Amino acid sequence: YRIAVLAGDGIGPETMAATLPILRAAAHKFGFHLDLEEALVGGAAIDATGRALPEETLTVCRHSQAILFGAVGGPRWEALPPEKQPERAALLPLRRTFGLYANLRPISCYPELLSSSPLKTEIARGVDLLVVRELTGGLYFGQPKGTVMTDRGERAIDTLVYETSEIERVARVAFEAARARKKFVTLVDKANVLESSLLWRKTIRRIAADYTDVQLGFLYVDNAAMQLVRNPRQFDVLLCENLFGDILSDEAAALCGSLGMLPSASLGKARFGLYEPAGGSAPDIAGKGIANPSAEILCAALLLRYSLGEEKAALAIEAAFRATLSDGFRTPDIASDGAKTVGTEAFAQAILDRFE
Amino acid sequence: YRIAVLAGDGIGPETMAATLPILRAAAHKFGFHLDLEEALVGGAAIDATGRALPEETLTVCRHSQAILFGAVGGPRWEALPPEKQPERAALLPLRRTFGLYANLRPISCYPELLSSSPLKTEIARGVDLLVVRELTGGLYFGQPKGTVMTDRGERAIDTLVYETSEIERVARVAFEAARARKKFVTLVDKANVLESSLLWRKTIRRIAADYTDVQLGFLYVDNAAMQLVRNPRQFDVLLCENLFGDILSDEAAALCGSLGMLPSASLGKARFGLYEPAGGSAPDIAGKGIANPSAEILCAALLLRYSLGEEKAALAIEAAFRATLSDGFRTPDIASDGAKTVGTEAFAQAILDRFE
Ligand SMILES: CC(C)[C@H](C(=O)O)[C@@H](O)C(=O)O
Ligand SMILES: CC(C)[C@H](C(=O)O)[C@@H](O)C(=O)O
Repeated sequence: YRIAVLAGDGIGPETMAATLPILRAAAHKFGFHLDLEEALVGGAAIDATGRALPEETLTVCRHSQAILFGAVGGPRWEALPPEKQPERAALLPLRRTFGLYANLRPISCYPELLSSSPLKTEIARGVDLLVVRELTGGLYFGQPKGTVMTDRGERAIDTLVYETSEIERVARVAFEAARARKKFVTLVDKANVLESSLLWRKTIRRIAADYTDVQLGFLYVDNAAMQLVRNPRQFDVLLCENLFGDILSDEAAALCGSLGMLPSASLGKARFGLYEPAGGSAPDIAGKGIANPSAEILCAALLLRYSLGEEKAALAIEAAFRATLSDGFRTPDIASDGAKTVGTEAFAQAILDRFE
Repeated sequence: YRIAVLAGDGIGPETMAATLPILRAAAHKFGFHLDLEEALVGGAAIDATGRALPEETLTVCRHSQAILFGAVGGPRWEALPPEKQPERAALLPLRRTFGLYANLRPISCYPELLSSSPLKTEIARGVDLLVVRELTGGLYFGQPKGTVMTDRGERAIDTLVYETSEIERVARVAFEAARARKKFVTLVDKANVLESSLLWRKTIRRIAADYTDVQLGFLYVDNAAMQLVRNPRQFDVLLCENLFGDILSDEAAALCGSLGMLPSASLGKARFGLYEPAGGSAPDIAGKGIANPSAEILCAALLLRYSLGEEKAALAIEAAFRATLSDGFRTPDIASDGAKTVGTEAFAQAILDRFE
């Protein structure tokens, strides 16, 4: 297997360095070969080449079956205009080029970490949901998009557009995922205001007929944003168009405490995928050796599962991670009384110890 | 003064009945005359006239200086298509007809009610923010909006459009509000993806020059959704375009516990305003005499403040409400150990007792 390794900025290189030995150990144990090819991305790539996503990096990705992504962005590039910042300038073209239409973000409140959650323990306990976000359509890419001068000032336009086929394919991802979980899909939309939401509802109802074992619910996005705080346990799979998924997956990510725990998978055709921690480049703690590598390591597990079909290797990594947590290892972001607070490397080593 | 009273559905009539005596008492005490004119709206209006917002109701509103609104919607009308449901079919035309471009939603976590919050007490304590939402533009009303057939299926379009002048006027409302508060405005946008957000940033930067005593910050909407859960105390005034404001104000409303406490004001030109509880029609508890009338009563206070300029009367109602809370009165939605749990009428009476 060939994997493109794009560590990026901030804590990206550290969490990536902590993850690769675990990936290699998984390959060794389960008897497959991994070709890990590193390439520049984000601010690091801007500094070296002037572009957040250089052509050589795209070439490496094209020759791979999956991309393991670190994080991009930081204060160094904040003076760039918003639309040129590394995060956007790296991620949007990657999604578009590789047709990564389904973004999966699993969010679980681990019992060991309830004290890190901003929610009361009785509300956070047992939360285990999956946001499935459409990633290549909607307001992000719809045309026309631009600003025109009028006699009264300026007029700016963005376009939210969806076609039936774009909705169908991501809906199937959500229903398939629900089958392997609690069998409950909630479509999040704004069907009382948006035409595109009416098309989502209609299309999802049709697709649901192929998944009679999965329950289907509908929720307006404003209500969903509220319910996520009041009672997040009610959800299993939340299916969202691109921008609603952007907002709700970040809201949901905040529910369980540290962002350092949350992986994401962005899937395209033929199992190609990009795997990226939800938490970002965390420039404030970069270079200190204290970043939580969990999200990157769990990304590696998702990569093995979705892009390589190595389910056993994925499960082995996840089990070692859970064992490390329950044995009391913690990075500083999730530190708590009586736990062993360790740095990035030691945390990853503890996982490796429990893996072999 | 003439006020249109639109009680609507569900708990609307009950909370309105509890509120009007307080409004009348305020008029009496502060020496002004109120003409309260009732009219049909929402499901009740659909049942009686076939329309959620009958022409007679619009006429009553046109002859008034403000609208005191109850709540609309309920299971009885849920079979209607999403775009015809009472909430949408009543509220969107009201906003449009009366040019209610600025929606204000103050959200405070009262110290007496921290146990009702889904957040840990140390996170909820001291939260006091105001969402200022643009209410007549963006994806709600932008053209083109519709669905077309293509050879591959259907294609649905919504349009997000803003003009400089629409942004300016609501920005001024936000800055003025911040002046009377903690002097900090955060613009919530998605400037790394949306053209319209770039126009918002540019326009707000220009308006900010008139308010050098107010600090200005920028936050992407996904990050704002996350920060609201992690650390809501960091915010003072959140300024949002229409749909972001819809989502974030509901998320913020969930932070402090009962929705029954939250009023909102939708302001247009020449002080005209519509005042509406944030919580909705709560059909599950309608008719039981247990609904929390606080939001409606606080709406009455906002109406006195913003539309009638009767600041003293507004403050008197708010003070009586706070005294009622600290004297331990609670409706069932905010019940807690050691407090006096009472129904809608008794709660309103307790406020009235503390008012006179
Ligand atoms: C950087 C930005 C364009 C991106 C998005 O909005 O999709 C990010 O917020 C994300 O969720 O991955
Ligand atoms: C009913 C609906 C159209 C409305 C909105 O989205 O504005 C409601 O959610 C609100 O926030 O008042």
